[in-house]
Amino acid sequence: MKVWRINTRTKKLAIESPPDNWIPLGGRGLLARIMLDEVDPTCAPLGPNNKLIFAPGLLVGHRLSSCDRISIGGKSPLTGGVKEANAGGSTGLQLTYLGIKALILEDMPPDDEWQLIHLSSNGIRFEAANELAGLGVYDTALRLLERFGEKVAIALIGPGGEMGLASAGIQNLDKDGVPSRIAARGGLGALMGSKRIKAIVIDSADGQKPHIADTSAFRAAQKDFNKALMAHPQTQSYTDFGTSAMTNLCNTLGAMPTRNFSSGQFAAAEKISGEHLRQLLLSRGGPSETTHACMAGCTIRCSNVFGSENGDVIVSPLEYETIGLMGSNLDIDNLDDIARLNWEVNDLGLDSIEIGAALGVAANAGLLSFGDAARALELLREIRAGSPLGRILGNGPVTTGRVFNVERVPAVKGQAISAYDPRVIKGTGVTYATSPQGADHTCGLTIRAKVDHHDPTIQIDLSRNAQFSMAGYDTLGACVFAGFGFAATPLTIRDLLQARYGRPFSDNILQDLGRETISLEREFNHRAGFTPADDRLPEWMTREPLPPHNTVFDVPDKDLDHIFDEI
Amino acid sequence: MKVWRINTRTKKLAIESPPDNWIPLGGRGLLARIMLDEVDPTCAPLGPNNKLIFAPGLLVGHRLSSCDRISIGGKSPLTGGVKEANAGGSTGLQLTYLGIKALILEDMPPDDEWQLIHLSSNGIRFEAANELAGLGVYDTALRLLERFGEKVAIALIGPGGEMGLASAGIQNLDKDGVPSRIAARGGLGALMGSKRIKAIVIDSADGQKPHIADTSAFRAAQKDFNKALMAHPQTQSYTDFGTSAMTNLCNTLGAMPTRNFSSGQFAAAEKISGEHLRQLLLSRGGPSETTHACMAGCTIRCSNVFGSENGDVIVSPLEYETIGLMGSNLDIDNLDDIARLNWEVNDLGLDSIEIGAALGVAANAGLLSFGDAARALELLREIRAGSPLGRILGNGPVTTGRVFNVERVPAVKGQAISAYDPRVIKGTGVTYATSPQGADHTCGLTIRAKVDHHDPTIQIDLSRNAQFSMAGYDTLGACVFAGFGFAATPLTIRDLLQARYGRPFSDNILQDLGRETISLEREFNHRAGFTPADDRLPEWMTREPLPPHNTVFDVPDKDLDHIFDEI
Repeated sequence: MKVWRINTRTKKLAIESPPDNWIPLGGRGLLARIMLDEVDPTCAPLGPNNKLIFAPGLLVGHRLSSCDRISIGGKSPLTGGVKEANAGGSTGLQLTYLGIKALILEDMPPDDEWQLIHLSSNGIRFEAANELAGLGVYDTALRLLERFGEKVAIALIGPGGEMGLASAGIQNLDKDGVPSRIAARGGLGALMGSKRIKAIVIDSADGQKPHIADTSAFRAAQKDFNKALMAHPQTQSYTDFGTSAMTNLCNTLGAMPTRNFSSGQFAAAEKISGEHLRQLLLSRGGPSETTHACMAGCTIRCSNVFGSENGDVIVSPLEYETIGLMGSNLDIDNLDDIARLNWEVNDLGLDSIEIGAALGVAANAGLLSFGDAARALELLREIRAGSPLGRILGNGPVTTGRVFNVERVPAVKGQAISAYDPRVIKGTGVTYATSPQGADHTCGLTIRAKVDHHDPTIQIDLSRNAQFSMAGYDTLGACVFAGFGFAATPLTIRDLLQARYGRPFSDNILQDLGRETISLEREFNHRAGFTPADDRLPEWMTREPLPPHNTVFDVPDKDLDHIFDEI
Repeated sequence: MKVWRINTRTKKLAIESPPDNWIPLGGRGLLARIMLDEVDPTCAPLGPNNKLIFAPGLLVGHRLSSCDRISIGGKSPLTGGVKEANAGGSTGLQLTYLGIKALILEDMPPDDEWQLIHLSSNGIRFEAANELAGLGVYDTALRLLERFGEKVAIALIGPGGEMGLASAGIQNLDKDGVPSRIAARGGLGALMGSKRIKAIVIDSADGQKPHIADTSAFRAAQKDFNKALMAHPQTQSYTDFGTSAMTNLCNTLGAMPTRNFSSGQFAAAEKISGEHLRQLLLSRGGPSETTHACMAGCTIRCSNVFGSENGDVIVSPLEYETIGLMGSNLDIDNLDDIARLNWEVNDLGLDSIEIGAALGVAANAGLLSFGDAARALELLREIRAGSPLGRILGNGPVTTGRVFNVERVPAVKGQAISAYDPRVIKGTGVTYATSPQGADHTCGLTIRAKVDHHDPTIQIDLSRNAQFSMAGYDTLGACVFAGFGFAATPLTIRDLLQARYGRPFSDNILQDLGRETISLEREFNHRAGFTPADDRLPEWMTREPLPPHNTVFDVPDKDLDHIFDEI
């Protein structure tokens, strides 16, 4: 596996062997390592010294269920710190088939011409892409698939990334060619836009699957993993209801973001629940699907296709975070409305969490009424138009709160809190506060732990373990839901890696990788100027009790400050 | 001298004796001490835990030339760190006559009703002020002077502060009742607005001058100081040309901000020079005045009154920083245009440096053409209207750059660089980078030093000494131009303080006070989360050479990191 280094100014490719300290890592861990080795932590995120890096996880390339994710990273224009965002789809797989351990985009062009980069076993070529500028990701993907054939993988940005909006992500094609798998968080789409790259097209037709050192050992471990995954009760739940299974759980616990995080229970929660979503899709039929895989080989298939009453597709997939942030958080209880908002955000290439949170803050600023889905859609169209208001919102809730003087901004390190109110699920609050990535449930969600989520004294260990595990999965390229299987058979991770790479791995490789990753990320952030003062929830969440439990976030600062003492 | 503590929620006043460690300090030093003792450095700047503090300097109260300044401070909504902004006018004098060493406004009201606070020897009263909401500072001051009599001092905010804009300052009446003396920098007007205080009216009619322990010693020292001040050649220059004497000097050196800091020389510099300004005002006559005192007793009188051709006043004063940031920086070379922009910014209660810099960034974003004064005025009216675009600009260049994706933002710690390009006047660049206040020439300007301003190896000591001196002057309540006198007779500072307070002061009291002040400020910022990574000029100023000398800012980071090692 090689490192492909592309200079976006000179348009030259260098293919290099990875240095020794990069070899044991992949995905999120490798990104952190590369950034620490090569990126000045104080550089301007959208200047020539930042780099945009793609790194498939260590287990990518074998269609292991839920284990072909691509990690994308750089210094975040949103948080100013280290950033990794990962996604399913086919990008990770095809990069791996081309033997690419890491793809590093450097520098920036001297002019404003849009380019696309085509990757194949013949190397790279830049092509003019001005005719794609301003197009949404759906149209862009269609045109590129027409031009380059239906089998390519594509990572691309929408108008949001072109405008440099700090909530812009990078979309990736799912296994069916739909650009819906977004590496959403932290503004990496703006970073790609700063290098004037509209799309990266990956054609691995002449590539090959990565070598497995011990095929039979690999298959044996894979079998154990699959068996455990299929046996886990949550697997069936996610197949049936997708991530929106979370709605009822979160609402029952009183942690559902509602009207800009002013309540933890949403009166109309049932209408946006996974159960209701499933019934609706089943009753509509046509293109609607209650279950759908984003990556080839996934057995969970937590995704879905949301069709309208008229039999056309509104969006695919409709996920819990969007339902929380653009539904209950905005007092919008109609799934059709939420799905339409979701399509618009996707097409713009923006993070629905960040935008949903920005709209919640905008509602507090009087720019829309809670519950007014038509106005919310209008505001998304302001983003598309690039109006001052649209650009404010597109930069996320912190910018929105700053401009409109709203203190109630749900964000940590500049990044929006996702759909679990940390005043109730306090372990997740610890994750939001202390993750080097900024507020992000995928960095260590604790909602399923059998603990008293209100007790501020027991959350630190819970969050730390979850953060190590998640950083580990992100380094493997494994979806969090692969954890249903791995948690039951933890040694299969070791066995898969040993079989794949033909060298020994520790029994605790998941946590070891996670610990190392977070250690590297914290070092980068430290050099970028982060301190314990950044490892805090917004002050108002420590003052303002959340109904119905009327709790505040009260995990002591000193506990937050010591969570990573051991690394 | 007492501490007056006002709770803006309960509307109660507590009059307290200052704790021992507050007694030796005044002005900027006292603000830093109070903030460190009482304000959580991580608090939300516009939340209830921040405090707005007024502290006259140690020498205030005696109409010593240029020594009656008021320091205003709190945690800055612009920089997120410690903030002191000072102003001339009558606020410092009248607070001192009421025996107020520090006025501390705490908490915030539960509702949105605007209030004013009236202070007199009878204590305080709150009065409803909703009828003043939305009014500019000029109209507001007129109404308040009508209601409370012409002799009161007033500190007030304009629409900018009401809207919570991070470039909003606090205006103070000059000796003639004109609200033109703005504690401009760092968004303290937004802090005052967050507590819903439109104005503070200070009636010291029943107050008294502060006690002087040894009157004859005080008069003797005052005489020496005055003599030295009058003898200094710069005194006459500032009397004749005001601060705009700087235009020709700065332009000749190639450090004049031009078209958003893209050049250091402005072709039309002569048209905005102090010499031209003086000729223009002399030729216009009428209300125009080439020299004007902001504080009673000032012998320098660097201020002016800028009248139009028609004989009415456009603005008073017109100062160099405004000429630099709203003139050459926007490619506007007509003093009438600059004066009209200045009036508008003043009336809104905003910092003309911050707004000028924001407009420069906006020009790079294509929102106005350089040189288009009419469009610049239109944009200021967007701020008054509170439109999304106006609110973006009103939050300063960093927000403007973030929203419109412009990297060329001239700011440090979130605060705009003033009218000396740091790639040429590198000592001032060191000040911009390392001052705890964010970029601010008043924290240590080095342009008059007889050194090679381009040499990166000799700027650290120069800046440090200037920073200590300026922090010292700000603690005394002395204008920087008082330094023309004090620098020639440094022991008069010791003598004045000893005579005033009846206790010994060190020979090096100016630098001692400055050192202590900066030490306290750095400690506050450290606790707020600032690190060496914050002590940097924007990266592009280290990459992008400035014509005509084509220098970049190249004082090494490691030198910046050690500038305050001794404190």
